[in-house]
Amino acid sequence: MIILQRTEDMTQWSREQRARGKRIGFVPTMGFLHPGHLSLVEFAKIQGRCSQTVMSIFVNPTQFGPNEDFEKYPRDFERDRKLAEQAGIDALFYPAADDMYEKFARTFVEVEGMGKVMCGVTRPTHFRGVTTVVNKLLNIVEPHVAVFGQKDAQQFLIIKRMVQDLFMPVEVLMAPIVRENDGLAMSSRNVYLNPNERKDAVCLSQALNIAQAMIAHGETHSTRLTDAMRMHIEKHASARIDYIAIVDTENLLPILQIQKSSLIALAVYIGKTRLIDNIIIS
Amino acid sequence: MIILQRTEDMTQWSREQRARGKRIGFVPTMGFLHPGHLSLVEFAKIQGRCSQTVMSIFVNPTQFGPNEDFEKYPRDFERDRKLAEQAGIDALFYPAADDMYEKFARTFVEVEGMGKVMCGVTRPTHFRGVTTVVNKLLNIVEPHVAVFGQKDAQQFLIIKRMVQDLFMPVEVLMAPIVRENDGLAMSSRNVYLNPNERKDAVCLSQALNIAQAMIAHGETHSTRLTDAMRMHIEKHASARIDYIAIVDTENLLPILQIQKSSLIALAVYIGKTRLIDNIIIS
Repeated sequence: MIILQRTEDMTQWSREQRARGKRIGFVPTMGFLHPGHLSLVEFAKIQGRCSQTVMSIFVNPTQFGPNEDFEKYPRDFERDRKLAEQAGIDALFYPAADDMYEKFARTFVEVEGMGKVMCGVTRPTHFRGVTTVVNKLLNIVEPHVAVFGQKDAQQFLIIKRMVQDLFMPVEVLMAPIVRENDGLAMSSRNVYLNPNERKDAVCLSQALNIAQAMIAHGETHSTRLTDAMRMHIEKHASARIDYIAIVDTENLLPILQIQKSSLIALAVYIGKTRLIDNIIIS
Repeated sequence: MIILQRTEDMTQWSREQRARGKRIGFVPTMGFLHPGHLSLVEFAKIQGRCSQTVMSIFVNPTQFGPNEDFEKYPRDFERDRKLAEQAGIDALFYPAADDMYEKFARTFVEVEGMGKVMCGVTRPTHFRGVTTVVNKLLNIVEPHVAVFGQKDAQQFLIIKRMVQDLFMPVEVLMAPIVRENDGLAMSSRNVYLNPNERKDAVCLSQALNIAQAMIAHGETHSTRLTDAMRMHIEKHASARIDYIAIVDTENLLPILQIQKSSLIALAVYIGKTRLIDNIIIS
């Protein structure tokens, strides 16, 4: 595995692979890797049919709000490097913030509307930061395929919209959520949870399971589904709901009834840690 | 010359040229071609060292304000087609608005700050429309080089900033202004002028000449330069100044004294037609 820090070196590496007829899969991450990230690499290789894989590790400052956990976000490059190598990554892109955002940089990419709902309500500049950095990364890495996790479903749907609207020459794929044994979706932020919170944290996936079971039994009304989910979560002492949303996957607008492609997503504070989870009904 | 209307056909054409080792130069236009546009083609071939040239003709709706001349903007595809062919264009890209902006499209690219000064004061959404459509076009055409005219200097500097900030894999070049015999900068909007206005319109380039002569004689103060320019323009009955600006080419911020890279730019209404012109002092 080669480690590349300079943006020019990353681009050059990819062009050499392309010139040799290789199909490049790209997995952008903020590091502190867990099995969820590593499953994206596997997904790029198998579903994405990529013979070469690139992973980026970059804790992107512009997607954190002023009172969020940018400074505190867990980082461990040495551990990540080993895990990436074990996962069969070919090139690890590890740029400096000064290179990704040079002194005079002032360009932003925004997908209007879709970044202001759901997670965008409490994090109003988050998705603008995400689309901007992903745009940069895709231009630097020039992959054939980029893989994102369903865990961040809103992020994926916004990025897909951006790629389509701007005619970016890349295919974007969404890989399924990887969960702990008890159902908790894997997240770098799970390390923030104390033992009691860790137990309560399972209420997110349980609530989604409840909704899924209700839908399997014929329930279609969004309010009945969200009421049942809300009731379950509120039984947990450390849980405080940020939002429960049932939306159209195309535009993230709320829907009154489950339809052909619906996203059921929620964000819940467990103590001070904000966790997210979702299911897609199709 | 091949005419391509579908975005996929345009991308495929470029990739075939690239695969054959050709260097592609791209000249984006809104059509109604004049010698200024055609000089960009020449520039792409010579200074850009491009063996293949693409021109796009697309009157981009998002760069026109609600009360601007989008509907009235001059269009003549048959004439443009002939001129492009004569200029030695290899591929003419002529997309439909529905393809460039599909129904659900909602992504915008914005270079913060630089689009709100000078022409951005009276046209607050103009440059956001420009950067968004140029971003799309560059992703569709995948050129090695894109050439823009100095006539729209603010536009060029903003696009250059976008390309640099987003790491877009293209080189952007600026070609000099082409002028009528009396000095009027060529523009598709010059057709709006009646004979009297056409005479007055020369006051823009004359004002810039006055400033240049003063600088050649040692004047460096922006206020003295703008005062002299203003005084000259105000002698013309049909002229009404929108702005006269002396700014740093890096960030378009006003400067009190001429420095190593200064842009002197102005916009003047001649009757109802808004014309622009500029010089760069370096």
